[in-house]
Amino acid sequence: MDEREILTWETYGAAVRELAQAVADSGFVPDIVLGIARGGLVPAGSVAYALDCKSLFTMNVEFYTGVGTTREEPTLLPPFLDLNELRDASVLVVDDVADSGRTLELVARVCDEHAGTVRTAVIYEKPRSVITPDYAWKRTDLWINFPWSSEPVITPRTGVQDA
Amino acid sequence: MDEREILTWETYGAAVRELAQAVADSGFVPDIVLGIARGGLVPAGSVAYALDCKSLFTMNVEFYTGVGTTREEPTLLPPFLDLNELRDASVLVVDDVADSGRTLELVARVCDEHAGTVRTAVIYEKPRSVITPDYAWKRTDLWINFPWSSEPVITPRTGVQDA
Repeated sequence: MDEREILTWETYGAAVRELAQAVADSGFVPDIVLGIARGGLVPAGSVAYALDCKSLFTMNVEFYTGVGTTREEPTLLPPFLDLNELRDASVLVVDDVADSGRTLELVARVCDEHAGTVRTAVIYEKPRSVITPDYAWKRTDLWINFPWSSEPVITPRTGVQDA
Repeated sequence: MDEREILTWETYGAAVRELAQAVADSGFVPDIVLGIARGGLVPAGSVAYALDCKSLFTMNVEFYTGVGTTREEPTLLPPFLDLNELRDASVLVVDDVADSGRTLELVARVCDEHAGTVRTAVIYEKPRSVITPDYAWKRTDLWINFPWSSEPVITPRTGVQDA
């Protein structure tokens, strides 16, 4: 089972435009686009531009520690967003994938306690997700290679360090 | 003078890898990658993954109001980052472009009051920038079309609104 869903940058660019189009078509006009770091930051930035939303917030959640492994629970990490900033706002929570869905569910729940309306958008939705995102570009059960996380970590090239 | 620097998603993907490589080669190992919203969010996400940096912060600054027009001063906007989270850390501030350079200069200065070490990285550096970024992928004097902001704002398609 080495089949993977490979998302290239070019396809990513089209995917986030389609995702933003689905949001616009639904009539939802977010006051705030909130990206879940790290994976949701790139799509949140793209969706905010596509929808001309100037308020771009982030929350930090850790869950994955590696391919196929997870921490016990998704955990909010500092810096903590001042949730009062969400008060009565329409918030679009954006992540790269609803895999277990527990990260997205946690953030949506936390936001829901403060915001006016909360909706969720992901590029990919897995069948096992505990939450059904309001917007998903594609559903897949495959392991996904995102363009920002599928290449090797960059390390210094030998002999070029200057500091 | 309608010549433009067109950055495609594909070229962007290569550009941020090269930018991250320059950071790694310099020996600088950031504890925190800090993206300047909105334009710096996408490259900050990419660079954080490339450098395997798990702490991805954001700051919101408004300056541009449209093509060629600016506000009087770059201004920090809510939600405000708790700057105590930067204490003694090595911080890599990332933005898409140092145009006037005043946004990057403001954020670097604010961070410098709290962080241990602050360095700045941009995809593009303009000749007129008041700050010389520590890392820049490319220098240009042209207007830049970034892949996340060069397409039209998405509006609802007629007849498909359901909410």
